[in-house]
Amino acid sequence: MNDRFLKACRREPVDATPVWFMRQAGRYMAEYRTLRQKYSMLEMCRTPELAAQVTLQPIKLGVDAAILFSDILIPLEPMGAPVEFAKGEGPVIARPVRTAKDVETLRVIDPEESLGFVFEAIRMLRKELSVPLIGFAGAPFTLASYLIEGGHSTNYLLTKKLMFSDPACWNDLMARLAEVVRRFLRAQVAAGAQAVQLFDSWVGQLSVDDYETLVAPHVRHILRDLETTGVPVIHFGTGTSALLESMTRAGGTVIGLDWRVRLDEGWARVGHDHAVQGNLDPASFTAPREVIHQRAADVLRRAGGRPGHIFNLGHGLFPEAPVDEVRALVDFVHEFKHA
Amino acid sequence: MNDRFLKACRREPVDATPVWFMRQAGRYMAEYRTLRQKYSMLEMCRTPELAAQVTLQPIKLGVDAAILFSDILIPLEPMGAPVEFAKGEGPVIARPVRTAKDVETLRVIDPEESLGFVFEAIRMLRKELSVPLIGFAGAPFTLASYLIEGGHSTNYLLTKKLMFSDPACWNDLMARLAEVVRRFLRAQVAAGAQAVQLFDSWVGQLSVDDYETLVAPHVRHILRDLETTGVPVIHFGTGTSALLESMTRAGGTVIGLDWRVRLDEGWARVGHDHAVQGNLDPASFTAPREVIHQRAADVLRRAGGRPGHIFNLGHGLFPEAPVDEVRALVDFVHEFKHA
Repeated sequence: MNDRFLKACRREPVDATPVWFMRQAGRYMAEYRTLRQKYSMLEMCRTPELAAQVTLQPIKLGVDAAILFSDILIPLEPMGAPVEFAKGEGPVIARPVRTAKDVETLRVIDPEESLGFVFEAIRMLRKELSVPLIGFAGAPFTLASYLIEGGHSTNYLLTKKLMFSDPACWNDLMARLAEVVRRFLRAQVAAGAQAVQLFDSWVGQLSVDDYETLVAPHVRHILRDLETTGVPVIHFGTGTSALLESMTRAGGTVIGLDWRVRLDEGWARVGHDHAVQGNLDPASFTAPREVIHQRAADVLRRAGGRPGHIFNLGHGLFPEAPVDEVRALVDFVHEFKHA
Repeated sequence: MNDRFLKACRREPVDATPVWFMRQAGRYMAEYRTLRQKYSMLEMCRTPELAAQVTLQPIKLGVDAAILFSDILIPLEPMGAPVEFAKGEGPVIARPVRTAKDVETLRVIDPEESLGFVFEAIRMLRKELSVPLIGFAGAPFTLASYLIEGGHSTNYLLTKKLMFSDPACWNDLMARLAEVVRRFLRAQVAAGAQAVQLFDSWVGQLSVDDYETLVAPHVRHILRDLETTGVPVIHFGTGTSALLESMTRAGGTVIGLDWRVRLDEGWARVGHDHAVQGNLDPASFTAPREVIHQRAADVLRRAGGRPGHIFNLGHGLFPEAPVDEVRALVDFVHEFKHA
């Protein structure tokens, strides 16, 4: 069993820096594209055999962890808000949630009952994998933004309208989401996930004070409880240069850093009593190998060989990433020697 | 003449905090929408009488500065890259710039020759206005991103591909843009602009080191020269929480802060030898008046009555902003008394 990743989460010394990639199971791999021609995104998420198969695809690239193939929006349908993945348009929520009445219809589900396919995939994967398996969920703000906007947004106007105009309704929505996410992550751990990542991908749209007041308490509800399971929790967002201290206080064993902040400066702000994950700009894969490796070396040098660094991108792999370069980067990270 | 705005740029004491809004001439005003039914965006920018008329529309709301109605992409056509403003889709560059050959075709124009309509509008406005007139231009990175992507982007992959893979070609492109922007802003000042703003709207997509290496030298080329004109220069971007120190070093009398950073913390990082502009979240206008004013009061309290604060949003006004609330906020800012 390769346990570099789990050791780094616990800030224990490792023989080489562990590396995995957000969206490492995805369209950049030919095997994935082949399966996606036969099955829809939702079919793949909901069929344990397919989810497990896709999860395994990138392992041969040499990564030190697997992340369950799924989607952060998966819990929304059983809650009462069906999601469609329209081709090339991203997710669409047919009936967006915008009023107190809409919020009241959202069920605080028991994931064991309605999301059994996720746990089944986890159990299958644990029998196959020689690297740790990461479970995950979307964080309440990011989920709420999809629910309210009805899909992806550029300005989050409707989300912020609810936050700013009706904080009681907002907090009701966030509390329902947070409790579902808490149960969902706990159940993933119970099924065998050896770490979990909370994706608050769009939280960087908020001011520090709005985050502290209207988001952090709900994140804390989830992460305080998860900490008692003993599995590492990665707390991730993008555009969070102003939020690192607040996100760290909200919880997490490992804090995700995006590429906008220098890794050493971000780690100092998070505090060396936490591990960090990141933070190569995913657009680096548009460059020639030599440049990718120079840029990765800069990240590694900033980590300085301090125990507790997990190499990753600052956000997910793009479909345009060349698979050979992904593989070569894994090797480069593993072979990197700190001076 | 109302000179609160210019005094604040120079960090001189003022009788009330000056306030203006990015995109204060825009679709949120009925008068603007009426004109837009008759004329295209480009017609309005290129007809001095129309540009001047639109520039004047928001002045009755009580703002302390006018900003010339135009678009940051206006210099691109004479450079050799025509822009279309497709309805509801944002700007489209028909022939994107992606290779060294493409870059070579871009002309370093003399703005006096090819953008005379801008200076004519400025001269007309200076005769009408009782508040200072702000000229502006897009910064090289933001202009380059439109040129390369062919329009607005979400991930800037093509832009970064050029930056990372062919820095010589990138620097050639940036140098051409920077020289055009320098000449264009100088000419606006010569025509009568009493301050200028450099919009590096999308620069928050970059890491600190990429900004320092591949962007800051070109911004410095512009701003070092503008400083010798004696007019205040506002240096603005969004998502710049990790870039404030670097942007300040690149130049500017006034640094724009977006809402993600607390105004007092941002100002401390910029340094109190600079003025700052900002930083209410533009989405605040979705809330009831009481909430808008609470949020504005927080910005003003963080400014603390220190000379050198210009109240603004963290980015442009949305078309959804209610004009009555915009007017009421101007009054609120003017009447705010620091404890």
